Amino acid sequence: MKKVKIYVTLKESILDPQGSAVQGSLKKIGYEEVADLRIGKYLELTIGETTRDIDTIVKEMCEKVLTNTVIENYRYEVEEA
Amino acid sequence: MKKVKIYVTLKESILDPQGSAVQGSLKKIGYEEVADLRIGKYLELTIGETTRDIDTIVKEMCEKVLTNTVIENYRYEVEEA
Repeated sequence: MKKVKIYVTLKESILDPQGSAVQGSLKKIGYEEVADLRIGKYLELTIGETTRDIDTIVKEMCEKVLTNTVIENYRYEVEEA
Repeated sequence: MKKVKIYVTLKESILDPQGSAVQGSLKKIGYEEVADLRIGKYLELTIGETTRDIDTIVKEMCEKVLTNTVIENYRYEVEEA
């Protein structure tokens, strides 16, 4: 069993209206020091026994289903579970 | 300037229908080895000069605005930017 942590972020050049809205809210309640805020996704997968290569599977899943590679970047970590 | 990375996850006891749906989709296209999948949020904040303690600010923001502590857990990392 492996535990895979995937971090999905919007590319730098892509506007993040959700992040801007949250940053605006924080500013209103007194957190002016927040200069930038961007929101992404964090996925935790548990992967069972498989004969396939774990990196290959994770990359395939990210590119087919889990992320939109046109506007998003991803990185991942694999841990023994 | 500090860069803060915040990871927000649903508590273990809370159902994650979004994660289950994605896991179902992965299974359908041939990734049966995915035993569990949970989806959380990943926030990247840039925090400018402040006289306040960074840990205090981040915890306050998480508990007031960024997370719902009834159903979510969070952890964070602070890096020099």
